[in-house]
Amino acid sequence: MPDVVRTEFEVRWGECDPAGIVYHPAYLDWFSVARMHFLQENGISYMKEFHDRGIVVVVLEAQCQYRKPLRAEDRVWVEAWWRHLSRTRFGFQYRVINAAGEVCTTGRTEHAFIDLHGKPLNLAKRDPDLWRRVQQIPVRGEWNS
Amino acid sequence: MPDVVRTEFEVRWGECDPAGIVYHPAYLDWFSVARMHFLQENGISYMKEFHDRGIVVVVLEAQCQYRKPLRAEDRVWVEAWWRHLSRTRFGFQYRVINAAGEVCTTGRTEHAFIDLHGKPLNLAKRDPDLWRRVQQIPVRGEWNS
Amino acid sequence: MPDVVRTEFEVRWGECDPAGIVYHPAYLDWFSVARMHFLQENGISYMKEFHDRGIVVVVLEAQCQYRKPLRAEDRVWVEAWWRHLSRTRFGFQYRVINAAGEVCTTGRTEHAFIDLHGKPLNLAKRDPDLWRRVQQIPVRGEWNS
Amino acid sequence: MPDVVRTEFEVRWGECDPAGIVYHPAYLDWFSVARMHFLQENGISYMKEFHDRGIVVVVLEAQCQYRKPLRAEDRVWVEAWWRHLSRTRFGFQYRVINAAGEVCTTGRTEHAFIDLHGKPLNLAKRDPDLWRRVQQIPVRGEWNS
Repeated sequence: MPDVVRTEFEVRWGECDPAGIVYHPAYLDWFSVARMHFLQENGISYMKEFHDRGIVVVVLEAQCQYRKPLRAEDRVWVEAWWRHLSRTRFGFQYRVINAAGEVCTTGRTEHAFIDLHGKPLNLAKRDPDLWRRVQQIPVRGEWNS
Repeated sequence: MPDVVRTEFEVRWGECDPAGIVYHPAYLDWFSVARMHFLQENGISYMKEFHDRGIVVVVLEAQCQYRKPLRAEDRVWVEAWWRHLSRTRFGFQYRVINAAGEVCTTGRTEHAFIDLHGKPLNLAKRDPDLWRRVQQIPVRGEWNS
Repeated sequence: MPDVVRTEFEVRWGECDPAGIVYHPAYLDWFSVARMHFLQENGISYMKEFHDRGIVVVVLEAQCQYRKPLRAEDRVWVEAWWRHLSRTRFGFQYRVINAAGEVCTTGRTEHAFIDLHGKPLNLAKRDPDLWRRVQQIPVRGEWNS
Repeated sequence: MPDVVRTEFEVRWGECDPAGIVYHPAYLDWFSVARMHFLQENGISYMKEFHDRGIVVVVLEAQCQYRKPLRAEDRVWVEAWWRHLSRTRFGFQYRVINAAGEVCTTGRTEHAFIDLHGKPLNLAKRDPDLWRRVQQIPVRGEWNS
């Protein structure tokens, strides 16, 4: 089970703005793709094991630092790893790397488990088996980049 | 009850692409906003009266003709009207007009009512009262622009 | 040089709407990705050989038929091919295929070459070498699906 | 010249995700709309006075805290104000307020002026007149919400 999962992206024309570079909210969308991929690579389908069973993962906070702009057709990799994990919350950290190996963007997101009524949810109580599997995924922790 | 509803938009920076003009899929998004506004102006909230009661409106077909490009900060109006309406399907037509009164874009969408299991739905059977109200909205019909 | 190019997509969470399915304008965005990939697979970078040299490809018309909805994490392939090609215009056709081999969506787009002032452009005159290379890409033509 | 500018939004269907709530990157897009509106209300068109004259405003950092989810058709107001302003950089702060007056989301963005080659730009040197006008806009500063 990998502690860091890399997802490859080719920048889409429609992700760029009139300045010719990736429109800054698009990075949060990439982080979202990277999170789902992180779970998949660790054996968990967000759609089947969370969404379809009424376990909602909400975003509490998101932040992003933009260092180098990217443009359409650029190939990049988004690295995602867990900063922390508990029964009720977790945090992710991300780096966007270009083909030259440069860090173009860094980011973090904080999340909570809630139910379909918007109430906070303890994953270990709600679904002990899923919690057991989620717990096996390594938490890399804080990492300065 | 108006047969044509105008929705005002100010083009967003993020709706434009590296060519500096509105990215073409954004018009379909505006049409979607214009449809919901068309219903609202005719006394119907899509969220409360369709979505929340398990009546889904799907898109069967969409088309768009692009005549004049638009750019960020441009002010435009999207006109929407019903081309046809039945118990199971309906069609919309749209025109995007700029501040000079020019038609910049035209489009059409076709829709069907379905239930939460994806099955076609007869609105008159499923919700006679809603159908009665929907029927009162004037159908302008085909209109060449 | 392939006459049909397949691009793989994994449906993103952010491409889906509150009905839980891909929001219909997203397909036009996929077609745009598929077009750039079609050119790449045929040896042409849109960014380097069109965009950076002031040759703009605009969309004149787009249409899409939606047959089967898709949801986040679904894996699909968008096939793109040329319906026609001339010195001033070209047309694409698309099919979206799911993992079961079903056609979920079909579409078409029509395009013209213009310059940075918005004037129509004859590619053979503006850049004979690029036109020669573009012409070598096979045109599959109209294809009912 | 207002130090806080309110921009009204009606949440779009296409801005929401399969959880039925606004997809979190959409807030950064609203902040971008709110910034342009903030300048407009203070007599400056970003497109005409920055973009068209080769002065690019890039995003260095963005962050957002999500307190209360929103859904399609909700009416909200985004308040935007300047946290700080210098010849080379500025920062914005934002609050998203719903119809009940509740703060649903807060955020910040940091920006720099650059030229078309990506080099940092001193606005007072590059365009003293524009800088004079920009300086007249009141800076509200840090504000806890």
